[in-house]
Amino acid sequence: MHILIVQAHNEPQSFNASMKNLAVEELRSQGHSVEVSDLYAMAWNPVASAADFGSRANPEYLTYALEQRHNHVHLSLAADIQGELDKLLKANLVIFTFPIYWFSMPAIMKGWIDRVLVSGVCYGGKRFYDQGGLAGKKAMLAITIGGQPHMFDEDGVHGDLNDMLRPILRGTLAYTGMTVLPPFVAYHVPYISQEARSTLLEQYRQYLRSLDTLQPLQFVSLKQFDDKLHPLPANAAHMLG
Amino acid sequence: MHILIVQAHNEPQSFNASMKNLAVEELRSQGHSVEVSDLYAMAWNPVASAADFGSRANPEYLTYALEQRHNHVHLSLAADIQGELDKLLKANLVIFTFPIYWFSMPAIMKGWIDRVLVSGVCYGGKRFYDQGGLAGKKAMLAITIGGQPHMFDEDGVHGDLNDMLRPILRGTLAYTGMTVLPPFVAYHVPYISQEARSTLLEQYRQYLRSLDTLQPLQFVSLKQFDDKLHPLPANAAHMLG
Repeated sequence: MHILIVQAHNEPQSFNASMKNLAVEELRSQGHSVEVSDLYAMAWNPVASAADFGSRANPEYLTYALEQRHNHVHLSLAADIQGELDKLLKANLVIFTFPIYWFSMPAIMKGWIDRVLVSGVCYGGKRFYDQGGLAGKKAMLAITIGGQPHMFDEDGVHGDLNDMLRPILRGTLAYTGMTVLPPFVAYHVPYISQEARSTLLEQYRQYLRSLDTLQPLQFVSLKQFDDKLHPLPANAAHMLG
Repeated sequence: MHILIVQAHNEPQSFNASMKNLAVEELRSQGHSVEVSDLYAMAWNPVASAADFGSRANPEYLTYALEQRHNHVHLSLAADIQGELDKLLKANLVIFTFPIYWFSMPAIMKGWIDRVLVSGVCYGGKRFYDQGGLAGKKAMLAITIGGQPHMFDEDGVHGDLNDMLRPILRGTLAYTGMTVLPPFVAYHVPYISQEARSTLLEQYRQYLRSLDTLQPLQFVSLKQFDDKLHPLPANAAHMLG
């Protein structure tokens, strides 16, 4: 398959960059084609603004999502956005590799989400969750984090990590229709030995070798809701399902 | 009290900007002093990078949080960061006003969080959650969103909004020790009449008049955990509490 790795770390020698490099090498050796968007190396602009649009549906008042739709149709999206959107649409699997900043993505990657997940293509109207525009693609996170696993136990100090990642896993990746694989998480990275880091990299390699057998995360289906997105009675949802 | 409003919207005529303007006027008329960081107007740089540091603890390898601590001590943080940090430290209440992008902040504001919530000042070591460096301050979100309230019911298509906002409310604001007030949410904004918008603005004014009586959101306390952040038995936590 064709795989896009979107990666963001401000230290090119980082463990996070090593994870990206390992993934490129491992996935190519499995016979896949791999493309990389290294956002810091590209000096990616994360700010969604009027400058993203070569034409305007409404020159007087910017509604970002509406102009995304208009400019997609008129082929007038900013070149950097169009380039990333083309990469995204070509990919069967997208891997986001980043260090957790504030239980979320670094801003430079959030700005890739804000600008590249174009309304009218990736979602729009009733095209979201299992009806999303990117249905058929897979997505996964490969993340590094300072904390230790027990801090993310159900009764841990931060609670379950996937709950903290909900706006990404569900609100972004699943929202656009992508099948979301469970995240690969490298814990405690800034504080561990080189040997422990090597072990983590080997675990990541094994993870990448098991992509076909990973059980995707389960999210909501629009079939459980009526036209106005009110929940259907369980039976009705069941019959539609 | 002294209030900082951090706001981000790429349309200066937006409803979101009106909320910010109303808050400035209303809070000043209540006798508070108010400062505004309008991130789009400031052309705020959201990208956390080596350029943020005038000196380096380790010139060979960038660990962002460690350099935040080093540069804070050496007064060598980038001028834009230091300016915002000074505003933050002066404030008794911080109001974040933004449109929901992907169930989170626009990247330009995420980059304010990434760069301004400096390690060693706002958090660090065991100084987080109720022990955080910004304890004693209050924070709240005042947000605009395209969806309708029923979509964020417990059994709604997106589930509870505060669950989607968890990395911000808990993982960021509460993490730094701030007392988090319940968000003010303006729903369905792109799709409603001018009259409905006026009603929402009036509701926001009433909300701002009730700040003293709002019940803060409740989060975890480090007193419930031992030195290694393993949960204490409920009784022990109770005795320490």
